[in-house]
Amino acid sequence: MALIIQKYGGTSVGSIERIHRVADRVARTQGEGHRVVVVLSAMSGETDRLLKLAQEATPAPDERELDMLLSTGERVTIALLAMELRGRGINARSYTGRQVGIVTDSAHTKARIARVTADRIREALEAGEIPVVAGFQGINERSDVTTLGRGGSDLSAVALAAALKADRCIIFTDVDGVYTADPNIVPAAKRIEKISYEEMLEMASLGAKVLQTRSVEFAAKFSVPVEVNSSFKEGKGTLVTKEDVDMEAVAVAGVTGDRNQAKITIIGVPDRPGVAARIFIAVADAHINVDMIIQNISQAGTTDLSFTVPRADLKKAVPLIESVAKDIDANSVSVTEAIAKVSLIGVGMRSHSGVAAKMFEVLSREGINIMMISTSEIKISCVIEEKYVELAMRALHTAFGLDRA
Amino acid sequence: MALIIQKYGGTSVGSIERIHRVADRVARTQGEGHRVVVVLSAMSGETDRLLKLAQEATPAPDERELDMLLSTGERVTIALLAMELRGRGINARSYTGRQVGIVTDSAHTKARIARVTADRIREALEAGEIPVVAGFQGINERSDVTTLGRGGSDLSAVALAAALKADRCIIFTDVDGVYTADPNIVPAAKRIEKISYEEMLEMASLGAKVLQTRSVEFAAKFSVPVEVNSSFKEGKGTLVTKEDVDMEAVAVAGVTGDRNQAKITIIGVPDRPGVAARIFIAVADAHINVDMIIQNISQAGTTDLSFTVPRADLKKAVPLIESVAKDIDANSVSVTEAIAKVSLIGVGMRSHSGVAAKMFEVLSREGINIMMISTSEIKISCVIEEKYVELAMRALHTAFGLDRA
Repeated sequence: MALIIQKYGGTSVGSIERIHRVADRVARTQGEGHRVVVVLSAMSGETDRLLKLAQEATPAPDERELDMLLSTGERVTIALLAMELRGRGINARSYTGRQVGIVTDSAHTKARIARVTADRIREALEAGEIPVVAGFQGINERSDVTTLGRGGSDLSAVALAAALKADRCIIFTDVDGVYTADPNIVPAAKRIEKISYEEMLEMASLGAKVLQTRSVEFAAKFSVPVEVNSSFKEGKGTLVTKEDVDMEAVAVAGVTGDRNQAKITIIGVPDRPGVAARIFIAVADAHINVDMIIQNISQAGTTDLSFTVPRADLKKAVPLIESVAKDIDANSVSVTEAIAKVSLIGVGMRSHSGVAAKMFEVLSREGINIMMISTSEIKISCVIEEKYVELAMRALHTAFGLDRA
Repeated sequence: MALIIQKYGGTSVGSIERIHRVADRVARTQGEGHRVVVVLSAMSGETDRLLKLAQEATPAPDERELDMLLSTGERVTIALLAMELRGRGINARSYTGRQVGIVTDSAHTKARIARVTADRIREALEAGEIPVVAGFQGINERSDVTTLGRGGSDLSAVALAAALKADRCIIFTDVDGVYTADPNIVPAAKRIEKISYEEMLEMASLGAKVLQTRSVEFAAKFSVPVEVNSSFKEGKGTLVTKEDVDMEAVAVAGVTGDRNQAKITIIGVPDRPGVAARIFIAVADAHINVDMIIQNISQAGTTDLSFTVPRADLKKAVPLIESVAKDIDANSVSVTEAIAKVSLIGVGMRSHSGVAAKMFEVLSREGINIMMISTSEIKISCVIEEKYVELAMRALHTAFGLDRA
């Protein structure tokens, strides 16, 4: 008899018919002899409806009040599922973030979990109950409602799994797992049976948006086995867990492509100490995340400095960089929007040498020029022209043996 | 500087535009130098939308879960109003029933208030804040959300006014006060400036549905001055307060008509002790409220017993009564649906004699037959044929001087 946390996202509870199906699955899991805790998101579309109301009320809504507003969405779904289960004679009960004891800091709309007491959930489980918990929400020390930010329900589920030492935390979503690449781009992409937390983190941060990054970090920290699975069909999903020998056997676990970056180059930067710091402090002060940075070899006392920023921040970044460039006596600033970052990810890279060399060779064979490179222990990323991104992903997927089942 | 509780009902917060107008009024009241606490209902239609979802989920929804569901409606409106006020630079904050400390029993969907701590509201007022409170909801001792039943937001407002010893509790609704009669029936009806709790209770229970009965009882118990006013226009409302000399000066404060009753007569009831008890215990066991009861003078060892029940309960009541009638050897049961109860209400009746006599005379002059009569200290009611109800109300309104301003 295992203790299983089941988290269902907004599309999985998007209508009464879908809530019926969630109830079916919960009942079946209990029927198989397991103890179940359910964590729910708001019905899909509900958060946007509430945000629209808020925008109509006032242009820049207060964040504590936004949390009061947005936290209603999950209360609706937990009440509906709990009453449906009870209607079937199953002893289910809804609990809010407060009742579960999900205590957060006071950073409204993006609160961080400080601790999870879960006393009522333990009691409920003791009593043979199925607790149905509102995801996405907690309370701060003042007992005001907070929310955990986009994707926060995943985090609620993982945090609860950690607090209860659950055997598994299953994230039901609209896909049946994590793939070796985006199947829309790489038709040969395969579902990954098992992936390490680290790989999942790299995949998530590089744009495979199956699991929210913070949830994976939390799961890794507390060794919570997380399964990603589909709420719409039966079958296996992807298990995100601790690194093991199987995982190391393959060099590359997946290929990702990210088109959300843009490249800024400052040409003719005087090669003096402190110049780079001055540039990146200015960027950081504007809350713009810099991803990759490359500095050319200095020639005649100047160098070129390239870096990538989120494309959405470009409008904010460019005037700022132009002003800094002037201050430091650089020659000019050039911007390239049409770039993409292609990455290989795999804990096997630690033990397999030559992955980078092979990657460069594959790209070169396809006539793709590499503009920037960055590597970590389990990841190699290349910035290329955006128009080649699909080709690059497919070629790498094949070359690293991921097309095979 | 007074402390004023302002309660706005569902139609008053039924859209963002209307919430704007509520914000205007709250801001104006504060601008006049008063401290304000706002209590809100859910947007009109929201409770029905949620109930419909619950019905779709399961035919007989669990009541604790219903409360979890329904209590979201007020959280939406308090968040929207608070963010709108803050957007205008006014220091407002939303508070749930729990945060206010509205502690109730555990009778979900119709909980009774046990106590109101209001500590956070006191703190908030001290800090110059405008608290915006969710009506209709509280928590029980287990810290589960409860709701107070239909019209419960009025009760929240009055209870909060009592706890805070507010100078006035204003119930903003879609009418500008309590009238001497229903203006749809009696065009000459006038707004009453001031009415006693007792009169208001009689008016409310007799169908003038401006204020929920429990709220008036609560207000009377704690001497909370309650004003009923319109949220859609400016001007005076009706003050519900302790009885005073002015009120006693007029014999009749208002005329009401109630068409929701039906009359059941048991003919030929054996005149034995315990027979009446047997009938009314059966009716009470079926949770049917009996209003008026009349027993004719016994003739030849039998009597006729008439009583009124809510018309909605007639289907349930008739087979029950027929079965009891058989058991006690009564002759037959007759049912009259097309009746109405016309009532005069006024604390002045205590000091003015002859009100009943004059009432009977007025009805008789109009050719209206009186089927049943009941009186209390401040009320006289006559059951008449339903078709005469408008005529009776208008005639009584004129005869008792209520047509005058």
